[in-house]
Amino acid sequence: MMRPKIVLFGDSITEQSIGENGWGVSLANAYSRRADVLVRGYGGYNTRWAMFLLHHLFPLDSTTPIATTIFFGANDAALLGRTSERQHVPIEEFKENLRKFVRHLKECSPTMQIVLITPPPLNEEGRLAFAKSKYGEKATKVSERTNEVTGQYANACVEVANEMGVWYINLWSKMQETDGWQTKLLSDGLHLTTEGNTVVYREVIKVFNEAGLSTDNLPFDFPHHSKIDSEHPERAFQQNTCDVQL
Amino acid sequence: MMRPKIVLFGDSITEQSIGENGWGVSLANAYSRRADVLVRGYGGYNTRWAMFLLHHLFPLDSTTPIATTIFFGANDAALLGRTSERQHVPIEEFKENLRKFVRHLKECSPTMQIVLITPPPLNEEGRLAFAKSKYGEKATKVSERTNEVTGQYANACVEVANEMGVWYINLWSKMQETDGWQTKLLSDGLHLTTEGNTVVYREVIKVFNEAGLSTDNLPFDFPHHSKIDSEHPERAFQQNTCDVQL
Repeated sequence: MMRPKIVLFGDSITEQSIGENGWGVSLANAYSRRADVLVRGYGGYNTRWAMFLLHHLFPLDSTTPIATTIFFGANDAALLGRTSERQHVPIEEFKENLRKFVRHLKECSPTMQIVLITPPPLNEEGRLAFAKSKYGEKATKVSERTNEVTGQYANACVEVANEMGVWYINLWSKMQETDGWQTKLLSDGLHLTTEGNTVVYREVIKVFNEAGLSTDNLPFDFPHHSKIDSEHPERAFQQNTCDVQL
Repeated sequence: MMRPKIVLFGDSITEQSIGENGWGVSLANAYSRRADVLVRGYGGYNTRWAMFLLHHLFPLDSTTPIATTIFFGANDAALLGRTSERQHVPIEEFKENLRKFVRHLKECSPTMQIVLITPPPLNEEGRLAFAKSKYGEKATKVSERTNEVTGQYANACVEVANEMGVWYINLWSKMQETDGWQTKLLSDGLHLTTEGNTVVYREVIKVFNEAGLSTDNLPFDFPHHSKIDSEHPERAFQQNTCDVQL
């Protein structure tokens, strides 16, 4: 019995999801013995650079994922003329790149659940403080990203999701519902705190549940040990179905 | 570029490695962007039951793992005539099952690094306290496992590793070097605390390093973003080698 795969495709916020208290770890734990969560996060990448990976990453081995999250935009939204301008991607190209991602995944598997996640909101003060901690007095005095522009990329992401009929999570809006999101949910104005990771995890699980991928719907790949008759262990493994009510 | 796989095959101590502070999570994080860590842990399973999974789990998709940990024995060592006797496997069969695991993995791939991990030591008081917390006054007054017998299974595991020329971690011995291992490293007399997880993680990394699988030796699957020329991003992806010094 092949265990299904869930792929998390994105930038550093996805790469770091496998770290302590990361939303990827929480997902992997939730789907333990039911699905493998594979992290394909590439720190610093924008959608233009991620395009080079697309056909290498999907399809993945012999099986296509049952679900993929696509979580870009934080780097695409870096401003021209500021310190991270090399990562900037114009908003129309960002949208077109997302469309290409979705189109390719749908070609890999028409039944794959695709979830576009918008970039989180951005806290400019947090970015400046981070730059200062890294570069001291030489640090930039103007943030390389703004919340306003990041919001435009978030909206663009939602537009593409609606246009193409795939799931989305508007993280930019969702996070700003929390008082003190600037430091409560973001560690350096951009990346996630433990609480920020929890928000992403909950939102992803919510969408997966709506999409029919609740853990209850995905059986264990092999039986729970309590289902094994110690006198006749082979019986538990002859059944093709694993009881999902464990 | 296909990312290599590391598989963790075992019982509940492996299944729980994907949980908070788990040794599997630490491994996955250490090998981020270099290798996928796949958890194949089945709580309650002994080697006899795990034998039914072997040919389903390996080979895995189209690629065989570069390394596999085999971590059983805690359930095989459950005593006859006590509350967990259904999980008991005689020590000679335990050894023969481990040999079959190793032989099959070697057939899948002669270059796969195979690491046998012995069961951790067992704290009988911890087991009795756990039983009491679960069943109250009805709880058993004699532990279903003993440290002495678990030690015999640990020795048997080391013997098989030496006999077959594969790596091993004598966790049973290693953990008992720590003062207060009974509660410092074990949460319920059998499963791992955060510190217990750290011991396993460190021991596995140590063996992987010796086996030539240090993270420095495994390249990123795709370039670090700092290696991408924003004017000519395609160049970074035309090179077949990813710089591992990042």
